[in-house]
Amino acid sequence: MDKGIQKNKAVSLNIPDITDGATGDEVPGAPSRVSPFDRWMARKLLDLLGEPPLTLVLWNGEEIAASSDKPVARALIRDGEALNQLLINPALHFGDLYSVGRIEIDGDLIEFLEIAYRAAASSPKYQKLKAAQTRLFNRPRTNRLAESRDNIHHHYDIGNDFYELWLDDAAMQYTCAYFPSPDLTLEQAQRAKMDHVCRKLRLKPGDRVVEAGGGWGGFARHMARHHGVRVASYNISHQQVVYAREKAKAERLDGMVDYIEDDYRNIAGEYDVFVSIGMLEHVGRDHYGELGDVIDRCLTPDGRGLIHSIGRNKPERMNAWIEKRIFPGAYPPTLREMMDIYEKHEFSVLDVENLRLHYVKTLRHWIERLNRHAGKIEASYDRAFLRAWRLYLAGSIAAFATGSLQLFQVVFTRGDNNDLPWSRAHLYREE
Amino acid sequence: MDKGIQKNKAVSLNIPDITDGATGDEVPGAPSRVSPFDRWMARKLLDLLGEPPLTLVLWNGEEIAASSDKPVARALIRDGEALNQLLINPALHFGDLYSVGRIEIDGDLIEFLEIAYRAAASSPKYQKLKAAQTRLFNRPRTNRLAESRDNIHHHYDIGNDFYELWLDDAAMQYTCAYFPSPDLTLEQAQRAKMDHVCRKLRLKPGDRVVEAGGGWGGFARHMARHHGVRVASYNISHQQVVYAREKAKAERLDGMVDYIEDDYRNIAGEYDVFVSIGMLEHVGRDHYGELGDVIDRCLTPDGRGLIHSIGRNKPERMNAWIEKRIFPGAYPPTLREMMDIYEKHEFSVLDVENLRLHYVKTLRHWIERLNRHAGKIEASYDRAFLRAWRLYLAGSIAAFATGSLQLFQVVFTRGDNNDLPWSRAHLYREE
Repeated sequence: MDKGIQKNKAVSLNIPDITDGATGDEVPGAPSRVSPFDRWMARKLLDLLGEPPLTLVLWNGEEIAASSDKPVARALIRDGEALNQLLINPALHFGDLYSVGRIEIDGDLIEFLEIAYRAAASSPKYQKLKAAQTRLFNRPRTNRLAESRDNIHHHYDIGNDFYELWLDDAAMQYTCAYFPSPDLTLEQAQRAKMDHVCRKLRLKPGDRVVEAGGGWGGFARHMARHHGVRVASYNISHQQVVYAREKAKAERLDGMVDYIEDDYRNIAGEYDVFVSIGMLEHVGRDHYGELGDVIDRCLTPDGRGLIHSIGRNKPERMNAWIEKRIFPGAYPPTLREMMDIYEKHEFSVLDVENLRLHYVKTLRHWIERLNRHAGKIEASYDRAFLRAWRLYLAGSIAAFATGSLQLFQVVFTRGDNNDLPWSRAHLYREE
Repeated sequence: MDKGIQKNKAVSLNIPDITDGATGDEVPGAPSRVSPFDRWMARKLLDLLGEPPLTLVLWNGEEIAASSDKPVARALIRDGEALNQLLINPALHFGDLYSVGRIEIDGDLIEFLEIAYRAAASSPKYQKLKAAQTRLFNRPRTNRLAESRDNIHHHYDIGNDFYELWLDDAAMQYTCAYFPSPDLTLEQAQRAKMDHVCRKLRLKPGDRVVEAGGGWGGFARHMARHHGVRVASYNISHQQVVYAREKAKAERLDGMVDYIEDDYRNIAGEYDVFVSIGMLEHVGRDHYGELGDVIDRCLTPDGRGLIHSIGRNKPERMNAWIEKRIFPGAYPPTLREMMDIYEKHEFSVLDVENLRLHYVKTLRHWIERLNRHAGKIEASYDRAFLRAWRLYLAGSIAAFATGSLQLFQVVFTRGDNNDLPWSRAHLYREE
């Protein structure tokens, strides 16, 4: 499936390139002067980050390292203004500065980010600054109906060809895969994820399934093909819905699967199963109660449900840069916050599984494929786009690996439904 | 193990017997008059409960039935004052009135309670009254250190012989068993529960385990015997600790298991595993943060934890009568409320399993054994004690069967611990 990628120069992440030509490709011919104030800023930055074992290399080649451990990775900072921006709001500005090449990482990007994340997480100074900045500046975009469409368009309508380059071939799953044994291929692990979810939902032939947020439609087709269920799959990404419909028609599943270009809030009808894989992140913390109302409205008395979502151990906004450039309006909820979906209508949570480290593996597969197609992507978009996506995937690996992000699968039914399996052994019979 | 039960007339639930001799055994010789007001009260009670398919039989034999469905069970009300009390606060007074025999159930007690629970749960009038009464009158006892001792003494120190009559022989587990197949015996299912928890905790020989709330010590001995771990088991029930120490000595496990008569808040030392089965119900909603502090203080960086507790789908106090007569200070938390334990210290919830229907099965075994020993229990305590316990177990069955109560097992680790299994298949290898 490694076909050509459609030119898509119109898509841009709008990353500003504020310098006078220091765009990463060029190392300035004559390094500009490093002032005592620049050195002070560099030391201050390391202090703020809790003295991680990292070295900052300034634009004249001068190295500033944290006092404590032996440095294990190096960040090359190309100009004084970049250093200044980093110090003002590292979580927000690092992303743009890296994307346009005003910061380079000498060594493994993922390892560098993991070190920085771990250090920052245990630095009270950094936590204090981040909390204040979040309160003052980071206003995540909201998710009322029209806004959701804009937010989703920003991320998912940038070109199906692009996603085809690095997602699994078979089902185009842009969500955490499941590696019951860690050496599965990405294709095997995405298949295993879909099978795992289907077992959790105890699908029976003829079941009516509603899917909230169907991506490129792979999971809906999987359910229809392997379990004989009828699926109504809601999605507000136009490009994804067009793609999904074509695929279903080509695979003669269009009689079983209905891709509906509409918001989850407009789900209509009655269903035996509600499932949502990787949409809750886009629902926004103010709308979980509404989602619960939708489920209550559409689920049969003995219906089953599953929500699969990125989450947190404690409440915290999405990283400011990710929210700004990659996922506008996104918010990963804690389990406590997710209970807003379930409590009001007394849904019963039957099973929660945390697959955090499975997302590390999934993302490693994705970034490896992204890097393999780097030339093609840079040619179709631009260098900043490629570097931003590389950073987004690498940063996500670091966040899942250091425990800053979680992946929850939550199975539920109505509170008075006694048609429940006696154990979860049926989930593991085939493994 | 069906040995004699020690006389224990000193133990009383202090249930008042307010009538002039109408103590259940006697049907009054000449039935007293039923007034139009009595009939009005009876109809009002059925209306309040949402017109359940139940018949109220008044003390003169007159029957009042709900208008709707065909009645499937009958409650015999022995006097007008009992009817009056029922109408004023059914959740609180039914228990005492049943215990002293001023209400009798004609038919299956459990079925009667399930019908009443389901009807009341969907009766807006009843829910409104209960909410107001809870707010005004039900002040559950609190759980500061000294109070906890009193609360626990009230329930657990009423005689080990009594509990031996109807709990499983091998391990005296007074918590929900696990029935991976529904036809297990109680002994098999309690063993299966202990094995299931041990697998979830991934015990290794030499692990240091701390148990908060150890009951009669059966689970601590199980862990030591079958997994070669050392256990510090905390408990503030004096009689349970005495019993547990004797058992451990007799089984030559006293070198491995240390039963400590102290509060969970005083847990000292460092442990690889934290486990608590059926204690959280007694911790009280104001103390979950404190429990989290204790766990944070004692757990190693790669330690594992499990909390097993009765819970709710939405916040609601313990039934007023149960809280008053049976479990002072008890409160079953929602998952949202349980997060107070985990969020502050960023523990990562890895696995939640809801075993609600397993408690229905467990309780059915218990009540069947209790009934088998009814004569012995009545002789050692009194008739009201026996009937109160029968009602408590039957009411618990109804609460779990109708979805009013849940049973959560929550597995967790520290948020940055990456030593996690790739799947939960290891929990099901032996099933």
